Amino acid sequence: MRRTSHETDACPIARSLDAIGDWWSLLIVREAMGGRRRFGQFQKNLGMARNILAARLRRLTELGILQTVPAADGGAHHEYELTAKGHDLLWVLVALRQWGDRHQFPEGPGPTLLVDRAQRLPVKPLELHAADGRLLGPGDILLLSVD
Amino acid sequence: MRRTSHETDACPIARSLDAIGDWWSLLIVREAMGGRRRFGQFQKNLGMARNILAARLRRLTELGILQTVPAADGGAHHEYELTAKGHDLLWVLVALRQWGDRHQFPEGPGPTLLVDRAQRLPVKPLELHAADGRLLGPGDILLLSVD
Repeated sequence: MRRTSHETDACPIARSLDAIGDWWSLLIVREAMGGRRRFGQFQKNLGMARNILAARLRRLTELGILQTVPAADGGAHHEYELTAKGHDLLWVLVALRQWGDRHQFPEGPGPTLLVDRAQRLPVKPLELHAADGRLLGPGDILLLSVD
Repeated sequence: MRRTSHETDACPIARSLDAIGDWWSLLIVREAMGGRRRFGQFQKNLGMARNILAARLRRLTELGILQTVPAADGGAHHEYELTAKGHDLLWVLVALRQWGDRHQFPEGPGPTLLVDRAQRLPVKPLELHAADGRLLGPGDILLLSVD
């Protein structure tokens, strides 16, 4: 089944999902943020079929989310690292993680904690602020049409 | 092709994607946040096949993200509204939107703006803070294993 492409959709959410809405793509980005760089590491950690992983890595590279670089150990293979565009997905992953922590763990807290590197204390929930600094919640925002 | 289920995965990102990683589901949530409540409204705005839309609405309801309520006009049909768990997806949608705005609009700003309802000014980028209030970026966080 060929899915509809929303690549040129006017909505930035739709365009983002067109790029990274594939279920595996964000898990690959998660692994890359955790320091994984090699095909075999992604494959082992995600348990993906090699052909599917290869296709996703190619697509993420075409989209400018990952880039290939020579192997750090001087070997013949190449490795994958996040670009600035890829690192900028941090907020999407944190939002998914915090929602998951709050709603998808009925059995209690999961086995990992997202902490601040300096103090090793859990980070706070993501915050959305107005231009003047007020903290905003679900009822406080609006989508305005520009044209 | 049956996809792997990560419903019981230890990672909250994987569990979140298991629930809402389907490409259409978040667009349905986006529409519901924008005030759409009826099957026909979702169908018209998203251009989805009726059977696919029906399946996604059922799944989102089973997951406790949407709930069905009697029609506001007293008609025989029912309508869909977000639960608290559904409204809490706001940060995921905002994160996707802001990433899309920054990276998926090479032709210039899209036709909509996310604004603060009170002042009608664009909201600020999502912020992640440490327990002591420091603003955190991609290099500042770490995943710790609890066990």
